[in-house]
Amino acid sequence: MAVDRLKQIYRSIQPELMAMSAILEREMETRSEVMAPLLGHLAAVQGKQVRPALLLLAARSCGGIRPEHHQLAVVVALIHTATLVHDDIIYGASLRRQIETPNRKFGNETAVLLGDFLFAKAFTIASRLGTPVASRLLSQICNEICTGEVTEVHYRGVLELREEQYLEIIRQKTACLFGASSELGGRYGIATEEQALALQRYGECLGMAFQIVDDCLDFVGEEDIMGKALGDNDHFKVTLPMIHFLRTAPERERERFCGVFREGKLEEKKVELRALFKEFGALPYAYASAERYAAEARASLSVLPPSPSRDAMSTIAEFVISRDH
Amino acid sequence: MAVDRLKQIYRSIQPELMAMSAILEREMETRSEVMAPLLGHLAAVQGKQVRPALLLLAARSCGGIRPEHHQLAVVVALIHTATLVHDDIIYGASLRRQIETPNRKFGNETAVLLGDFLFAKAFTIASRLGTPVASRLLSQICNEICTGEVTEVHYRGVLELREEQYLEIIRQKTACLFGASSELGGRYGIATEEQALALQRYGECLGMAFQIVDDCLDFVGEEDIMGKALGDNDHFKVTLPMIHFLRTAPERERERFCGVFREGKLEEKKVELRALFKEFGALPYAYASAERYAAEARASLSVLPPSPSRDAMSTIAEFVISRDH
Repeated sequence: MAVDRLKQIYRSIQPELMAMSAILEREMETRSEVMAPLLGHLAAVQGKQVRPALLLLAARSCGGIRPEHHQLAVVVALIHTATLVHDDIIYGASLRRQIETPNRKFGNETAVLLGDFLFAKAFTIASRLGTPVASRLLSQICNEICTGEVTEVHYRGVLELREEQYLEIIRQKTACLFGASSELGGRYGIATEEQALALQRYGECLGMAFQIVDDCLDFVGEEDIMGKALGDNDHFKVTLPMIHFLRTAPERERERFCGVFREGKLEEKKVELRALFKEFGALPYAYASAERYAAEARASLSVLPPSPSRDAMSTIAEFVISRDH
Repeated sequence: MAVDRLKQIYRSIQPELMAMSAILEREMETRSEVMAPLLGHLAAVQGKQVRPALLLLAARSCGGIRPEHHQLAVVVALIHTATLVHDDIIYGASLRRQIETPNRKFGNETAVLLGDFLFAKAFTIASRLGTPVASRLLSQICNEICTGEVTEVHYRGVLELREEQYLEIIRQKTACLFGASSELGGRYGIATEEQALALQRYGECLGMAFQIVDDCLDFVGEEDIMGKALGDNDHFKVTLPMIHFLRTAPERERERFCGVFREGKLEEKKVELRALFKEFGALPYAYASAERYAAEARASLSVLPPSPSRDAMSTIAEFVISRDH
């Protein structure tokens, strides 16, 4: 049901996403024989384009999509891809969306430079826009993303991580770029200052809900078809259900969990942990937090005039809670 | 003699470099307890500031240094530092200017993100300037740098590398940013289009000479005090003296060199190789190439009005050939 409505939303912006892809393809053209296969490999990995979609829907809700919005959609897509390329190095990932990661295929050295290239390309495109608003906002967002990720790496394996620290990490590494995407959709349209800030808040809250749910998916699902598989190093990432569990469970259960965690055996013991988390309401706690963010995202939209795009953004905020992959 | 004149030049722009450092220090302030030690570590590594110095001298030769030039000097310094942080990961370097590299001190994961942070900070500062000229130019330059470095990594250990390929690699990875630094000094001053292009050419040629000489320093010097030590992976970098040697030496000598190279024993056999290179004029060939670039750099300055700063830039182009570290 929610999935059907989501598909319908994606269909409604499909021509805009294709216009974006056409620009992206042109921007990835290179005279370098060495760069060409690297950029070609990335072209094969098409994600869900959540951030460009948010940007385009926000644009449509604020006076309609202009050529600059397609350029901006390319910029946020490139920034996101650049962070993924570097993330995959950091977490030693070898597959993403069933395709070999650049670090796996071309080596860490080349993958570091490929990520840098994508960041630089994003800023090249942003710098060609009529105003410096996007360059300013997005370069700051990149600083936030890096800070969030450095903090995440720093606290890897630290079970004492507090809830507010976790929330700040995911705000920086994930929610900020969601917020900037929807904000820029409005700012490069006819959004008032109040509406632009509301769109930022919408995107940021949506991003918070998105990441909390993403972190829960490791422990959700039937015993056979468990959510997603953890990457090698994901085992040491502390997430909201864990934080709640450690705060509420009795010592014996806590120690059982800590043992599994410290040995890096979360994946192996997932079924057992799921039962443990269930007993102490760890997942409902995290989902309730995500739901509050999603509700705030929806509420933020009230300052926009009613439109199918506003409804679509609201639907996305509903869907983000119910998604299972 | 040349060194004395160079010191004098540096003294003359010392107050401007200090103004730049003060801005840099403020920009590196962070509320993040995790980022603070990373940025603090970098602050301890002060390089020769060649690129900021070029930018400031070019500014002075075109109407004088304005507040924007200090900002721009910070931007090129940050971009250069970001590339060094990522280079040190790529080449597994553990020391730079006698100080531990970020990858060594904080791990590769954190160093990848730290480099990203510096790039983003550079673009944040550039985006605040009055015009988008610097953002546009420098984001393109970053693309060139990445392309040059990816190509260098790709041709590591490939003894068939041709001279024009080598020259294109060093143009992209090194000379471009030299060119942009002096160009921006002029463009954010009162340079005419012709003068701005001449400053670009000056910087680019200077950068070419700089890098060719840098690559020669591995094989220059007395037998006891050999130039610089090769990094672990530098052993497999093909440079101009090697290219010339391989083109001109008889088969026996060529094979002797190839054996040493393929085993990664350049460092160990440096004394022997030096004799071999000497016999076939490999270093004079490379130095002659560097001298031609330096001469073109100096010649480019002729469209600027005579000034002490123009003379200083000319002196730097002389010095670049004679430097021994």
